[in-house]
Amino acid sequence: MYGFTGNILRVDLQNKKSTMESLKEDVLRRFIGGRGIGAWILWRELPPGIDPLSPENKLVISIGPLAGTKALGTHRWIAQFKSPLTGTYFRSVGGGFFGAELKFAGYDALIIEGRADKPTYVYIYDTNVEFRDASRVWGMTTEAARDFLLEETTKDARMVMIGPAGENLVKISALVTDDMRTASRGGGGAVMGSKNLKAIVVKGSKRPEIFDEKTFEEAVREEIEIIKESPAYEGFHSLGTNIAVYGEYLGGCFPTYNYRQEKLKGVEMFKPENLSRYVVKHYGCYGCMVRCGKIFKLTKGPYAGLVWDFPEYETHWAFGGNLGNINIESITYANMLADRYGLDTISAGSVIGFAMELYERGIIGKSETDGLELRWGDPDIICELVRKIALRIGIGNILAEGVRKAAEIIGRGSEKYAMHVKGLELPAHDPRRAKAFGLSMVTSPIGASHTIGISTFEEFGIPFKGRRVDPFATEGKGEIAKYMQDETAAYETGVWCIFVASFCGIPLELYAKLLRAATGIKEIDAQYLLLVGERIFNLERAINAREGIDANYDRMPERITKEPILRDDTKAKGQVFEEEIMIKDYYKVRGWNEKGIPTKEKLKELGLEDCLLYL
Amino acid sequence: MYGFTGNILRVDLQNKKSTMESLKEDVLRRFIGGRGIGAWILWRELPPGIDPLSPENKLVISIGPLAGTKALGTHRWIAQFKSPLTGTYFRSVGGGFFGAELKFAGYDALIIEGRADKPTYVYIYDTNVEFRDASRVWGMTTEAARDFLLEETTKDARMVMIGPAGENLVKISALVTDDMRTASRGGGGAVMGSKNLKAIVVKGSKRPEIFDEKTFEEAVREEIEIIKESPAYEGFHSLGTNIAVYGEYLGGCFPTYNYRQEKLKGVEMFKPENLSRYVVKHYGCYGCMVRCGKIFKLTKGPYAGLVWDFPEYETHWAFGGNLGNINIESITYANMLADRYGLDTISAGSVIGFAMELYERGIIGKSETDGLELRWGDPDIICELVRKIALRIGIGNILAEGVRKAAEIIGRGSEKYAMHVKGLELPAHDPRRAKAFGLSMVTSPIGASHTIGISTFEEFGIPFKGRRVDPFATEGKGEIAKYMQDETAAYETGVWCIFVASFCGIPLELYAKLLRAATGIKEIDAQYLLLVGERIFNLERAINAREGIDANYDRMPERITKEPILRDDTKAKGQVFEEEIMIKDYYKVRGWNEKGIPTKEKLKELGLEDCLLYL
Repeated sequence: MYGFTGNILRVDLQNKKSTMESLKEDVLRRFIGGRGIGAWILWRELPPGIDPLSPENKLVISIGPLAGTKALGTHRWIAQFKSPLTGTYFRSVGGGFFGAELKFAGYDALIIEGRADKPTYVYIYDTNVEFRDASRVWGMTTEAARDFLLEETTKDARMVMIGPAGENLVKISALVTDDMRTASRGGGGAVMGSKNLKAIVVKGSKRPEIFDEKTFEEAVREEIEIIKESPAYEGFHSLGTNIAVYGEYLGGCFPTYNYRQEKLKGVEMFKPENLSRYVVKHYGCYGCMVRCGKIFKLTKGPYAGLVWDFPEYETHWAFGGNLGNINIESITYANMLADRYGLDTISAGSVIGFAMELYERGIIGKSETDGLELRWGDPDIICELVRKIALRIGIGNILAEGVRKAAEIIGRGSEKYAMHVKGLELPAHDPRRAKAFGLSMVTSPIGASHTIGISTFEEFGIPFKGRRVDPFATEGKGEIAKYMQDETAAYETGVWCIFVASFCGIPLELYAKLLRAATGIKEIDAQYLLLVGERIFNLERAINAREGIDANYDRMPERITKEPILRDDTKAKGQVFEEEIMIKDYYKVRGWNEKGIPTKEKLKELGLEDCLLYL
Repeated sequence: MYGFTGNILRVDLQNKKSTMESLKEDVLRRFIGGRGIGAWILWRELPPGIDPLSPENKLVISIGPLAGTKALGTHRWIAQFKSPLTGTYFRSVGGGFFGAELKFAGYDALIIEGRADKPTYVYIYDTNVEFRDASRVWGMTTEAARDFLLEETTKDARMVMIGPAGENLVKISALVTDDMRTASRGGGGAVMGSKNLKAIVVKGSKRPEIFDEKTFEEAVREEIEIIKESPAYEGFHSLGTNIAVYGEYLGGCFPTYNYRQEKLKGVEMFKPENLSRYVVKHYGCYGCMVRCGKIFKLTKGPYAGLVWDFPEYETHWAFGGNLGNINIESITYANMLADRYGLDTISAGSVIGFAMELYERGIIGKSETDGLELRWGDPDIICELVRKIALRIGIGNILAEGVRKAAEIIGRGSEKYAMHVKGLELPAHDPRRAKAFGLSMVTSPIGASHTIGISTFEEFGIPFKGRRVDPFATEGKGEIAKYMQDETAAYETGVWCIFVASFCGIPLELYAKLLRAATGIKEIDAQYLLLVGERIFNLERAINAREGIDANYDRMPERITKEPILRDDTKAKGQVFEEEIMIKDYYKVRGWNEKGIPTKEKLKELGLEDCLLYL
């Protein structure tokens, strides 16, 4: 049915059985694809209260209706599950070539359930699904496992896998593709690990059909023109997300020293012209012209010789600014370790920052750090801690639990320095400096996400609905956050790359045009998509509500709401995040009650009558 | 001309020019191929007294007449040059697939000369030779450079390259193939580095012709039968060279603590049944059934997740027994670093052992070791020093010079603990325990080689010419050493793998049969080959003599000649290497004068009249 195929492959690890299922058309019309259908499946199938690391948890990996087509930026894959890190509904998105390959194999989503009795990988070749012994690759870093699995299957297969961190049930472990793209947040790696599932290897021979080829190609040409003329394209093409590091710092948005926001000495190291000196290769995900992927080469210092995928903006913060570390080479090295071990760099950097602050304050001492001096900015210590976390060695075994749980274990007032929302570590955007974005983070169903409801551009001067946004104001932020969150969810029905969709500025109307041409469903337009986005977002909140996660969990760390930004070289000096007032406004805009739960009217309005019984 | 093609490609880096040349048939009949023609070329073309790291040095890489045929174990490549480590003539041998590919491209040897004005690699596709910019891959570790170069040339090309160690002119740097096989000894990496040559990439489309296919195939079948029935095959097939580690230790032949030969606590870690637990994959060089290559997987300790080529016997000694280190995981990790940086593991282990002994004795202190405590057996220190040597950081900058020069720089009596012959670090066979092998080492033109003139088997009980050999006796060792050295040189005209030729026991007569069938030259038999071997060995000594390297350089370190083996759990206890008496005997057997230089009569007898003018 032209893109709206709704083909699901249910993979039962317990019984080594796979079944083909089809989503009904009305579900597809309501949720379109990707994040929409994943949330729908979890709502329907995930019993509340389960242990996220038990066989009862499900891992849904889905793609959008445009995956594998000629459109640009629509080939990512999205993983949804109950998170062992946050205890909430979760969604994490990855790039590379896996999404397109899954489409070529004939599926719109995989539902992984149960637990294999021994290390297993699943090899999907079109309709052929095999449960294979993964004992040989169990324990291997991602790169090595990839090479072995390609040899055991077929050279040009694509995969999603875990590294030792996922196997070790590290709560901040990632899902990693064959080309080292990750869906890293929320501990998806541990979910796969708990299922004894090392990898999902996919090879497909089909190609997606398009309802109206001519219109579709016209829309793709429009898309290419928009991307080409976008200023973001130029920047991302030349240096990837790193183009933003220095500017975000100057703008006061790039947090330092575990969000203490002190001046970062030597921050000039992050200037684009310095970072670009390391680039030796550009690459992109399936069918993308932006090619924001950069390969770095290190020729100096103790890591000289290393060639690896560049640390993204977030990682330059996580292992850099957040830890007072300006040694670019060590950030690249730590990033390499995280990719190979399969670890979320944002969360890893956050727990390391947390540990460094505790050490500085004397809350923990050398006897608790395996003898290491956790000094801010020490490159060797940072790399060592990444390894310890992934392998659960010494203090790494505590930090592997994520910052919320680590603070619980350590106690002694340490929770004050645990920078998270709902257990998900804060990313590299200071909510005190960009309050709409902060509001998105604090109300997001998954915790402090760096990609749900981004309004960085708007809070750096790009108008929102024709109005200039004051980043420090509290007024009107509810409306912006709601819109941005719904828009993200709308794009993620097609699992759009946020860089292409939001930053290069593909209007929802063009996404709608692509969808109409691909599927033949005429009524899809921008408003339709925004409504689907809102529907998905509310459904996700409903899943959380069913788990008992309500307004009490919409909380920023104390530092964000009470400690003002210290840096006096930025206009953001003195800002705090006025949580209470903004959340109140936001709930109102959302049509939610004071518990942060959608009202019955709202659910009806969104066509989510299914949820009424539970809420 | 069926195998005896004598095709030479001369690669002039200075002028970016390549020329095809042909060796005359009489040269081929005298030297056959491989080591023979390489030594001949260096004798003819290398001016005495040149700086090995100057453009005047030449790097000859050659193969044997059976490379790329159906024979087994004859596809290695041999690199010959003046060594920056020893100042002598040098030869180093590597495996993998490069040798066969060079044959397929139509060449029996490459002569690399001059120096490129900037980082360069040479891409040879049959008769097409390109000099390409290597700026992008300069500075990369071997694995990364390999991936980039395969992308820039063709996916199934083969290469010999250098890592950062070679670029940094580290005197103990290796030549490394795409599959991480190395010709590691003597600093060939630095020779390539000094020429600004990152890699030689080869792809060929031809296949070698055979004079008499039927007889050749019959001979190959004989070869296969011999290999199959050899006890060495079983062992090497299951665990590679590591099968020997524990046995050699028990036999007192596996030196410990920089050759102090004290008991190694925890040596049981090296038992075959323990090592084999790490193996996840077997692999072999071109056309080999032994497949002695093993891939290890580490699942415990700080290096968990690593999957890498197994450390060979010598490396288990170099980073293990020699340093009092029984942590198998760290040996694998250090080996991985050495492969990626392009470093000779034997020499690296030896200079580290030297440094540890100096530190223990208080000859060097923390102020000279960058603050590191160089304790015996500390896995982290060992890995850190490997990195420092390859990158010439801190103390690594001194150790990178090799143990002889490092002792010169440090002074303070440290030369007493520098374990080398002619500047080449001693390998993992104690000359005090296997004196014929020791005699081969001390008289070898390249210094203490682990592969020239091996008599381990004989000194562990396998009869030599029908006689049982007493490993501790001095009598008759001259004859054994001479024979073994000549035999090695004979095999290396075909660049035979020493494991297949010597350990699986392919008789020279069978090599002769293969050669006759391949080339049509009827007069080749075992005696002919042994004479060629002796001719080559004498020619190599003549090259050294021309450089002023004579009997004065045939010297073991004092520890080997004066300090008896300490371990009281071996029959070798109390043994020293009686150098003077054995060398005297050896010179006599060789027909050399007291200066260790071939007499005129000897040269004439060997058909080396060319050398008369110089000696």
